[in-house]
Amino acid sequence: MNILDRINKPNDIKDIDREDLPELADEIREFLVSHVSETGGHLAPNLGCVELTMALHRVLDFPEDKLIWDVGHQSYVHKILTGRKNEMGTLRQFGGMSGFPKTSESPCDAFNTGHSSTSISAALGMACARSIKGTNEKIAAVIGDGSFTGGMVYEAMNNMADIKTGCLVVLNDNNMSIDRNVGGMSTYLSKIRVGQQYNDFKGNVEKILMKIPVAGEHLARGLKKSKDSIKQIFVPGMFFEELGVTYIGPIDGHDIDVMEATFRKALKLNRPILVHVKTVKGKGYTHAERHPSYFHGIDPFDIQTGKVMKDRKVMTNTGVFARKLVELGKADPRITAITAAMGKGTGVAAFAAEFPDRAFDVGIAEEHAVTFAAGLATSGLVPVVAIYSSFLQRAYDQILHDVCLQKLHVIFAIDRSGLVGADGDTHQGIFDTAFLSHIPNMTIIAPKNRYELTRAMEWAVAYDGPVALKYSRGEAYYGLKEYNVDIEYGRSEMIHRGQKLAIVAVGNMVQEAEKVYDRLLADGTNVTFVNARFLKPIDTDMIDELSKDHKHIVVIEEEIKHGGYGSLVEEYVMDRHLDVDVTVCAIEDTFVQHGSVEELRRMLKLDADSLYDRIKHIISTDCTE
Amino acid sequence: MNILDRINKPNDIKDIDREDLPELADEIREFLVSHVSETGGHLAPNLGCVELTMALHRVLDFPEDKLIWDVGHQSYVHKILTGRKNEMGTLRQFGGMSGFPKTSESPCDAFNTGHSSTSISAALGMACARSIKGTNEKIAAVIGDGSFTGGMVYEAMNNMADIKTGCLVVLNDNNMSIDRNVGGMSTYLSKIRVGQQYNDFKGNVEKILMKIPVAGEHLARGLKKSKDSIKQIFVPGMFFEELGVTYIGPIDGHDIDVMEATFRKALKLNRPILVHVKTVKGKGYTHAERHPSYFHGIDPFDIQTGKVMKDRKVMTNTGVFARKLVELGKADPRITAITAAMGKGTGVAAFAAEFPDRAFDVGIAEEHAVTFAAGLATSGLVPVVAIYSSFLQRAYDQILHDVCLQKLHVIFAIDRSGLVGADGDTHQGIFDTAFLSHIPNMTIIAPKNRYELTRAMEWAVAYDGPVALKYSRGEAYYGLKEYNVDIEYGRSEMIHRGQKLAIVAVGNMVQEAEKVYDRLLADGTNVTFVNARFLKPIDTDMIDELSKDHKHIVVIEEEIKHGGYGSLVEEYVMDRHLDVDVTVCAIEDTFVQHGSVEELRRMLKLDADSLYDRIKHIISTDCTE
Repeated sequence: MNILDRINKPNDIKDIDREDLPELADEIREFLVSHVSETGGHLAPNLGCVELTMALHRVLDFPEDKLIWDVGHQSYVHKILTGRKNEMGTLRQFGGMSGFPKTSESPCDAFNTGHSSTSISAALGMACARSIKGTNEKIAAVIGDGSFTGGMVYEAMNNMADIKTGCLVVLNDNNMSIDRNVGGMSTYLSKIRVGQQYNDFKGNVEKILMKIPVAGEHLARGLKKSKDSIKQIFVPGMFFEELGVTYIGPIDGHDIDVMEATFRKALKLNRPILVHVKTVKGKGYTHAERHPSYFHGIDPFDIQTGKVMKDRKVMTNTGVFARKLVELGKADPRITAITAAMGKGTGVAAFAAEFPDRAFDVGIAEEHAVTFAAGLATSGLVPVVAIYSSFLQRAYDQILHDVCLQKLHVIFAIDRSGLVGADGDTHQGIFDTAFLSHIPNMTIIAPKNRYELTRAMEWAVAYDGPVALKYSRGEAYYGLKEYNVDIEYGRSEMIHRGQKLAIVAVGNMVQEAEKVYDRLLADGTNVTFVNARFLKPIDTDMIDELSKDHKHIVVIEEEIKHGGYGSLVEEYVMDRHLDVDVTVCAIEDTFVQHGSVEELRRMLKLDADSLYDRIKHIISTDCTE
Repeated sequence: MNILDRINKPNDIKDIDREDLPELADEIREFLVSHVSETGGHLAPNLGCVELTMALHRVLDFPEDKLIWDVGHQSYVHKILTGRKNEMGTLRQFGGMSGFPKTSESPCDAFNTGHSSTSISAALGMACARSIKGTNEKIAAVIGDGSFTGGMVYEAMNNMADIKTGCLVVLNDNNMSIDRNVGGMSTYLSKIRVGQQYNDFKGNVEKILMKIPVAGEHLARGLKKSKDSIKQIFVPGMFFEELGVTYIGPIDGHDIDVMEATFRKALKLNRPILVHVKTVKGKGYTHAERHPSYFHGIDPFDIQTGKVMKDRKVMTNTGVFARKLVELGKADPRITAITAAMGKGTGVAAFAAEFPDRAFDVGIAEEHAVTFAAGLATSGLVPVVAIYSSFLQRAYDQILHDVCLQKLHVIFAIDRSGLVGADGDTHQGIFDTAFLSHIPNMTIIAPKNRYELTRAMEWAVAYDGPVALKYSRGEAYYGLKEYNVDIEYGRSEMIHRGQKLAIVAVGNMVQEAEKVYDRLLADGTNVTFVNARFLKPIDTDMIDELSKDHKHIVVIEEEIKHGGYGSLVEEYVMDRHLDVDVTVCAIEDTFVQHGSVEELRRMLKLDADSLYDRIKHIISTDCTE
């Protein structure tokens, strides 16, 4: 690691001799593979943008200039080049370096990202601020072709064309989203990549020329001369040019010299510019190049074999959902499935393999996904929209306005609900009950284990109206199998009828609550234990019933507290003036950083130990005669 | 009204002789002007699409075929042609016909709309459902060029190009949003409208040809022959063609024959097609043609003069905000203002007139608006994002992920918060506290009157972090002027310290609560009266204090109940086990239809009479010793 040793603070790369840059790129790749193989992380996207990042760091000065990484999981090289090389060992770990850009981590991170398609909007804001303040920093956004399916990109480009200030957008085109990329834009970029569009034109023109007698020679020359004036009509990138954004490309995203020269030129022009850069996802590490999707985000792995270390085959909630969806699809031809660029992640891919005509990957376009589903539902089909909790936030208005207002039968399969761990604050699925439960006509179910998840899916298909099913990342709980009270609209499930204090747990927290319940039982404390199951509507009969002979209800949920299930219970108890105290164990008014789910739960006092202590305290103070 | 008399049920227009159609168009225009002059409503957009709607009704069969109106305020002609002519007198009135498409109103309304840019997504969903079910209904969406600035449109087109099923999108281009249209797309469409782009090309080619000796004649012929093969590269609409959507146009949106023939042809092609139709907003009524923005949505007016009847010049909250924003802008060069195509509606236009370089109209693009503001804020400016409450729903994720997560100093000026009246369920601003109050780092203020609104704006500029100011449509309250306790973070304002029962009112409901308070006082009942002011964080000291010597707190807010301010109060009281009852008078779990604000409040029991009765009842049952 000769050259990388000389990279210790921002801008050090500018002191590296040009001829040493390819060697540095190799060292960075080796460094990335070595570290991510131990910590896990987003490997393939970072391997793909090593030279791209280096070229940008040759032309931008940090922290004065502003560089915004769309989504941001491809910012590892940027972190290495801005003095955070030695933190790579703590990547995505509790208290360690984030896997995404964080302004709190370094002044070289200009904007926090995590969700897709925000970078151009943010960059344009910074560019306008520069005009207003009369400063002269350079501003650039790097965005993948996957993120280019999100509507915000178009809104931002539309606005950018109007504003006309200097702003560089680098389109990092690896011809992939997390999975295969989809949509008209992707097809269009592919055409540009292989030069097909330009060839089409040239072919056509040549054909015309051939048909014309005599002047073939002259025509060819004339054409060459007029190239500049025709350029804006013909060259690749017309789509962007039509919108008012200058297009340059495509250029090789692994050729530092070409990129450096292009970026330098582009940054001097005082207008919106898109530079189209072709890269290879996973570049330089054979396993990742061959399986870029698998190495998009990966757990610790063996460098030699490319195999994930502890690839213990557990059945995840996603897996349970995927399998059941195929089964339901076989029985009911109305069922359709929609994913927003997360076919594998959500499990919709399995359904798509079985029913290609009834499965839709709409790209990273959660808003369209939901309204598209509403369209399907008005025609009598039963769309299942599978979107991770934190990404579904994007479609709040569509859920409210296009689905719930018309009370359409759309099923929302909300994966990654609750704490997700290493991806951190932008990805925690802790707001879904809060943003869904105040929407009229919505029904929300949080199954306690894998068996209940499948039964909830059956129930949701049989129901007629909007239903959200929320379930967490990771292994599907298989305990409490013996408790399987039929699912009935708005009914909780009584697991054990005890005394004085009732624990009402939500979804994945039933498993954690079970540990507490067991320990209390071992202590000789006979508390009531309820699986909330329906978060909206809440089971008011159950609460009425509990309030008769319990002094205290303790709600446990892995969700922001205000607006969650617990607050619904509190509101109900207050409204009815019921004679029972309620304590809600949930996430207080704060965003939650990265770390393992276990660490985060301990921090938030939502682990079994903390919950046990808290409930013991409640019992000793509030439930004694 | 000879011919219009023959239009009494869906499809009747197909029986009208072709030569009588222009006369029918005239009659419909007269009918529209006559009715809307009495009820108020969206006049100019409907006058602009009379022939367009007629042409669509000549080629589509209702209710079998599906026609989706983007936003939907331009669906009056469609309603007239589908048997709802006689309901026009009840337009937008309580219990009467909605001003927007409603599936509950007629089977000829295929999809409810209200917010912008949803139509293509919904249409595409219906088109996919048709393929799956093997049916053969026709599917069309009508969308204005204003709505074409919303990102969902691009997401839908991107997906549409992939799916390749037959779906007709009619782009109703009147070269306007509600105000002047903005952005690269608008410029692009304008170029097409005036044929400039095509001329540019033709000019270039002719120039080349002229430079080439001898074969001028032949070349021209050769060019003509090759027209078809070159067409896809050259003709207007390249933007759409590049994306994979077939473009036809522009055609005259007031020529029924041309449109009918074009739509008929387009609907036969089994692929996504966009027909670009040029219309004139306000067409056929001189006042509306001249002032399309003013006649976009209008109160009852005099047909002769075009003047609004009761144009009593009241000072609205919007006006107060607009004036104060200019004042603040003069004093503080950091202040910038952003509107999403609602410059006049939000009052940002006044700021833009004074500070054109610090004001941004980003188009109907609420998501971009918010992240763009985040970009400005990271650069040290103080952006004020003025968006109506119900439209801000679109930017929920951006508020959470791009602003609050970074705790950026962005001010959200939420106009039309609370009930808005005649626009109905899609436009009521009743969810803002619910979707904002669970977001960490957010501060929410609801000023009680016009004076407090200006002071809250000053406070928000001086604060450092995300602040939402919410205020209602209509006249700015000027009462309670003598109560002007300094604004302090998280503090409510005590208006009167009474006994036993405390009324805590939120924002515009302080005015309503004042009436109740006065009547109670007249009864000799001395209750406490509090202006909540800060909805997040709530004033817990105030609640602690009240709980000491009050038996009951009554919260009054014009907001969905769960997730609102009242529920925050209830949660706090429960968490602290305070010895006080809480009753929340808010909107129960339901969407709210159209009608006057007064009628809606009575229906929801949020009018002074109902509130008085309710509080009297509480006093008599709960507050007696």
